[in-house]
Amino acid sequence: MSHILIGVMGPGDAATAEQYQDAYNLGFQVAQAEWVVLTGGRNVGVMDAACRGAKAAQGLTIGILPDSEERRTSPYVDIPIYTGMGHARNVINILSSRVVVACGMGAGTASEVAIALKTGKPIILLKPDAESEAFFYSLGTEHLYSVHQPEEAIGRIREILEIA
Amino acid sequence: MSHILIGVMGPGDAATAEQYQDAYNLGFQVAQAEWVVLTGGRNVGVMDAACRGAKAAQGLTIGILPDSEERRTSPYVDIPIYTGMGHARNVINILSSRVVVACGMGAGTASEVAIALKTGKPIILLKPDAESEAFFYSLGTEHLYSVHQPEEAIGRIREILEIA
Amino acid sequence: MSHILIGVMGPGDAATAEQYQDAYNLGFQVAQAEWVVLTGGRNVGVMDAACRGAKAAQGLTIGILPDSEERRTSPYVDIPIYTGMGHARNVINILSSRVVVACGMGAGTASEVAIALKTGKPIILLKPDAESEAFFYSLGTEHLYSVHQPEEAIGRIREILEIA
Amino acid sequence: MSHILIGVMGPGDAATAEQYQDAYNLGFQVAQAEWVVLTGGRNVGVMDAACRGAKAAQGLTIGILPDSEERRTSPYVDIPIYTGMGHARNVINILSSRVVVACGMGAGTASEVAIALKTGKPIILLKPDAESEAFFYSLGTEHLYSVHQPEEAIGRIREILEIA
Repeated sequence: MSHILIGVMGPGDAATAEQYQDAYNLGFQVAQAEWVVLTGGRNVGVMDAACRGAKAAQGLTIGILPDSEERRTSPYVDIPIYTGMGHARNVINILSSRVVVACGMGAGTASEVAIALKTGKPIILLKPDAESEAFFYSLGTEHLYSVHQPEEAIGRIREILEIA
Repeated sequence: MSHILIGVMGPGDAATAEQYQDAYNLGFQVAQAEWVVLTGGRNVGVMDAACRGAKAAQGLTIGILPDSEERRTSPYVDIPIYTGMGHARNVINILSSRVVVACGMGAGTASEVAIALKTGKPIILLKPDAESEAFFYSLGTEHLYSVHQPEEAIGRIREILEIA
Repeated sequence: MSHILIGVMGPGDAATAEQYQDAYNLGFQVAQAEWVVLTGGRNVGVMDAACRGAKAAQGLTIGILPDSEERRTSPYVDIPIYTGMGHARNVINILSSRVVVACGMGAGTASEVAIALKTGKPIILLKPDAESEAFFYSLGTEHLYSVHQPEEAIGRIREILEIA
Repeated sequence: MSHILIGVMGPGDAATAEQYQDAYNLGFQVAQAEWVVLTGGRNVGVMDAACRGAKAAQGLTIGILPDSEERRTSPYVDIPIYTGMGHARNVINILSSRVVVACGMGAGTASEVAIALKTGKPIILLKPDAESEAFFYSLGTEHLYSVHQPEEAIGRIREILEIA
């Protein structure tokens, strides 16, 4: 019986303090729920914060790195997967997660949300800005959710997993 | 001296008649300008139309397929590249194009526009809807352009190539 | 501090009973050493056996699947990573492992041993046949080792990790 | 009707003068036969030579680069495809070629021959050394051929294309 992987995606260097805190809280609560946190694995922003939060709750963390070797891997990643494939690893992030939470927005995150919509993967937007919400809902509403707090994301994930 | 590859991206099965016509015209004019058309290579929608237009103007066409073998390749693709990588081939589409034109929008196209913004590749939105325009300009305005006709896209590409 | 991932590669459907047993023993002993087993993740052959052995020793197992979703995933994989990239995932197997053990040979495994040699990843051939040994040693001998028992592979991994 | 792509694979920096000359001749003759040369696209060794030969015969050349942008692209590549995927692009080389010729051997080339065998792609070894020949024939003989001159490779390709 394989673990349940929950993807947490969001800005790297450009993450705000609030996004970092939200990602930390998300990671913590995902780990408390006994799910595994999956991120893009780098040592900055939402990727770093979600893994850090998960480790604070004794969770397991997976990082799918764009790099081909250790170089800028978050120290909070237990299992670094080195793809050597740059942005193409974003697709792996989505395919490998049971549910994805986007915590903040940016070009890389947008590509991940788009791939989630394309592949029918459940995707939760945490505190989306108006432009993101309007755009992604214009692409399709099935499997797309908006929430305003990390706790609400956890509740939503629970519902999605029960349905599936 | 390598050829200049111009990416034309857009919906597949979901393309409207207007998008198909615009993509055909774009492909035709890209070929007339002696550039090479690069698309996602499948036999539907904008991918198919842009290649078809380019062939009508005796151009050369490249298709970067998600598949690992011929199966649903556009008959208007001269050079099919089989990646066997599914949606990850979207990244190759962007990296291999000198300029990308998005003709219509959908989840797959959105992932390509996002990767273009992420990698600083010039990207032109042809007749963007309000939500797409608002969203992508919120991610960054450098190297991002909106146009309302295929001819205008060609003019814009010309300017971008002169600057570069 | 990230876990130490040890790759175990080898034939899928074509694995012999001896290779299956060797892979099981390898997986068991890798887990006993408190390393994590990484395989290609499918429910056949060496991939399946190594994960099964690791689980028998309460270890953690990672599978890097060629598929884009659960379909033929080994039930002994704790963390399935879905790449949707077919054989290109073989490169990820190598890049993500600290040391790789090839348990048996076949075309897929050969591509992995070759990538390991190309990228300077330590690679151990377990019970290599004469042709494999002669060929791979002709490509380079640095980071390439031959052993005749799973226990010997474990000893060799230990030495490699101490040196690194 | 798409072009016929013939892959020419072999060592990069490590190519010998004879391999460089053979690859040049191969490229020249592939172009004379009105097929398109596909290589790994870099500006060294067999990749460079095959493209150079093809251009000398007014042929068309495709390079599938490991890089994400122009940096070390052969000047004899007409159509550079930037994958940004490192060694994973080797798989694309094989999938996109109708027939592959290995001109010389090395770890990268070995991974390509192995993927060809794995996927049932016709693969011709030009002047194979004893170890390579023994090894690859031990993996399977279907779709695997050995030849001793570039002209012989061309004849073999012609036969394969007629059968297919």
